[in-house]
Amino acid sequence: MKAEIISVGTELLLGHTINTDAAHVARELSALGVDLLHVHVVGDNAGRLEAVLREALTRSDLVITTGGLGPTDDDLTKETVARVTGAPLEEDADSLERLKEYFGSRPMGANQRKQAFLPRGAVAFPNAVGTAPGCAVPAGDGKFVLLLPGPPSELLPMLRTGVTPFLQRYAHGAIASFMVRTFGIGEGAAAMRIKDLTDGANPTAATYATEGEMFVRVTAKADDPAAAEALAAPLVAAVRERLGDVVYGVNVAGLESVVLPELIRRGLTLTTAESCTGGLLAKRITDQPGASAVFGTGLVTYANEAKIRLLGVPEDMLRAHGAVSPEVARCMAENARTRYNSDFGLGITGIAGPDGGTPEKPVGLVYIALSAEDGVRLRVMRPQGRYLGRDWTRNRAASHALDLLRRYLFDLPPDLEQ
Amino acid sequence: MKAEIISVGTELLLGHTINTDAAHVARELSALGVDLLHVHVVGDNAGRLEAVLREALTRSDLVITTGGLGPTDDDLTKETVARVTGAPLEEDADSLERLKEYFGSRPMGANQRKQAFLPRGAVAFPNAVGTAPGCAVPAGDGKFVLLLPGPPSELLPMLRTGVTPFLQRYAHGAIASFMVRTFGIGEGAAAMRIKDLTDGANPTAATYATEGEMFVRVTAKADDPAAAEALAAPLVAAVRERLGDVVYGVNVAGLESVVLPELIRRGLTLTTAESCTGGLLAKRITDQPGASAVFGTGLVTYANEAKIRLLGVPEDMLRAHGAVSPEVARCMAENARTRYNSDFGLGITGIAGPDGGTPEKPVGLVYIALSAEDGVRLRVMRPQGRYLGRDWTRNRAASHALDLLRRYLFDLPPDLEQ
Repeated sequence: MKAEIISVGTELLLGHTINTDAAHVARELSALGVDLLHVHVVGDNAGRLEAVLREALTRSDLVITTGGLGPTDDDLTKETVARVTGAPLEEDADSLERLKEYFGSRPMGANQRKQAFLPRGAVAFPNAVGTAPGCAVPAGDGKFVLLLPGPPSELLPMLRTGVTPFLQRYAHGAIASFMVRTFGIGEGAAAMRIKDLTDGANPTAATYATEGEMFVRVTAKADDPAAAEALAAPLVAAVRERLGDVVYGVNVAGLESVVLPELIRRGLTLTTAESCTGGLLAKRITDQPGASAVFGTGLVTYANEAKIRLLGVPEDMLRAHGAVSPEVARCMAENARTRYNSDFGLGITGIAGPDGGTPEKPVGLVYIALSAEDGVRLRVMRPQGRYLGRDWTRNRAASHALDLLRRYLFDLPPDLEQ
Repeated sequence: MKAEIISVGTELLLGHTINTDAAHVARELSALGVDLLHVHVVGDNAGRLEAVLREALTRSDLVITTGGLGPTDDDLTKETVARVTGAPLEEDADSLERLKEYFGSRPMGANQRKQAFLPRGAVAFPNAVGTAPGCAVPAGDGKFVLLLPGPPSELLPMLRTGVTPFLQRYAHGAIASFMVRTFGIGEGAAAMRIKDLTDGANPTAATYATEGEMFVRVTAKADDPAAAEALAAPLVAAVRERLGDVVYGVNVAGLESVVLPELIRRGLTLTTAESCTGGLLAKRITDQPGASAVFGTGLVTYANEAKIRLLGVPEDMLRAHGAVSPEVARCMAENARTRYNSDFGLGITGIAGPDGGTPEKPVGLVYIALSAEDGVRLRVMRPQGRYLGRDWTRNRAASHALDLLRRYLFDLPPDLEQ
């Protein structure tokens, strides 16, 4: 089954909004084994949307639109699909009922009410979060147009509760896709190590570099999900073996999603002491539901005064070495652990930039320390020739801290291979 | 001048990567007054890329590709553009020089070296961060194909240093685009208030809802940037006036980018005390360069023990009212301010979910308090019928805290209009 996505919205063409919807829908289609061949973005322009929609229906079995279902005059998707498929808009009783329920005692204008109109013959997908329902509209020859709302908070639940059950009745075959996630290896080095593994047609393996991390994606196609997974499994294992301990997980969300469950499983506790990352490490840790079992205290000691008061970093140490120094990073980690009665302390101090660097301590220099009962481990993050920005630097520093802890927990060598 | 973007990469069609590149390029084009009419995503498939590229060149003056320039066998964009434009790939001496410099004493394989090959007649855009240069390739009839790298960290500097100067020589006219950002009003309510302002063709105004916030975009076209801005200005002012004090800024990055500069300007200091947001508020504050001038200490008091020890929240208060209560939020904010010698204290305590709710204290309930010299202000965030997830809840709670502070700083009524 061939599919394409049409994302509708002038805000996407002006760059005000990033098209996360397409990624969410793409993942869902991939899991169902539907081949997504094109994603198209058009503005809130009925003429261009119509042209793209007609073209898409000539080559694909399934066309999924996102956006343009809301109450405003800019929202033209439903009207355009009705014109292209020849199914006039009619008020849908169930959708109107849900809309009335949503508004309760508040007044509902005509522009709101138009959201309950769907092309004749459409299957409605109720909106669990917002006002505009989605729907599946038959487009002849067994083809369908699926209309989905633009806001991700509305789209995501609708994918699960409406779209997936609908497509499971129509999709054939399945794709299994595995992301082998790494920290501490570049794309070029990884590609060289797995070169001979990337030649196959099914399953396939390919490297992808994103901000500060490198992934290898392994994909297999088969008749059903279990067969596709079985086909991919040996290649996933081979990639893992080649890359070694820079691999931190497969189909996981990030380093924190590997470190936190392990801490929870073993009942080990953690205190963070952050300077330049300013709470980002604590935020990533508490992104994980259940973090409270192992993470009670996080300290953002942005000022020297806070480092002294909350962590007992000696004033002479700050004077002698400066706040950005291996000594202070070690002391922050050690005292975070001992003063706050945890099994582990993580300390981060550095210069996230864009300003504040000196020739000796350039922007991008960060010291990261892990304190455990048996000692302190230190990692230094140096600017790699070029400064990649404040967000990148902070995120990378937090990742280093999590990677230090991962290597401790899983008995891996503390240093990255370079 | 009409443009379209072709983003290349199977990872985009599998939903493993979100297409941020298209948004970055789109913003740049918009600023230059180039009309972006289509964005197209295709996989690492030479045949489909070629078809889309040929089609794009029939209707647009400028086609910009992102991705597929790297060293691996999957990277096919350059080869495909060379075929479509009839310009064979040739080694570019400057690009090779830069590549050699990048690798230094490390070995450079043939796959790396292929990155220095560009279509004959292309103008190279040096890559300030990575290995693959971008380039502009003439495509006949005054048309151009611009090839840009996929990783955003490489794309962004190249847009500024290579693409914009190149396009400034070719683009005609300019678009001015203003995002009026709000907190505390829904899209429906906003659309109703500005209904008569959204009918114009130039300038235009339109509402957009994203996660927890609602924007109004005002856009004007004219011969040059100054004229476009002058055309948009009265409409921006009218939208601001209609929406009132829920507007927190125009073309700003978020509530923190309004609050922090004002604190810095007035030399007022802030301490944060976070429970359910777990460092996210501190992280958003320290996203702003220069935050250290006003933000010295942030406390992530995830456990009750930390609330007692670091903030002096009385044990009986925790017993009597529970950690998620207006009393504890007030106490956290007040003691964050007084104990850490700041002008303001912000306290957040709530249930971010997905678990941990009770009938009295459901998931999504968050108390947010601001303490200042003249008293404490409290805001309650209640689940609006449906739970929108942990990330949404945490982010929204941090925004409420920043909005409380914004309203205090700018002498606005503390409560949101509802």
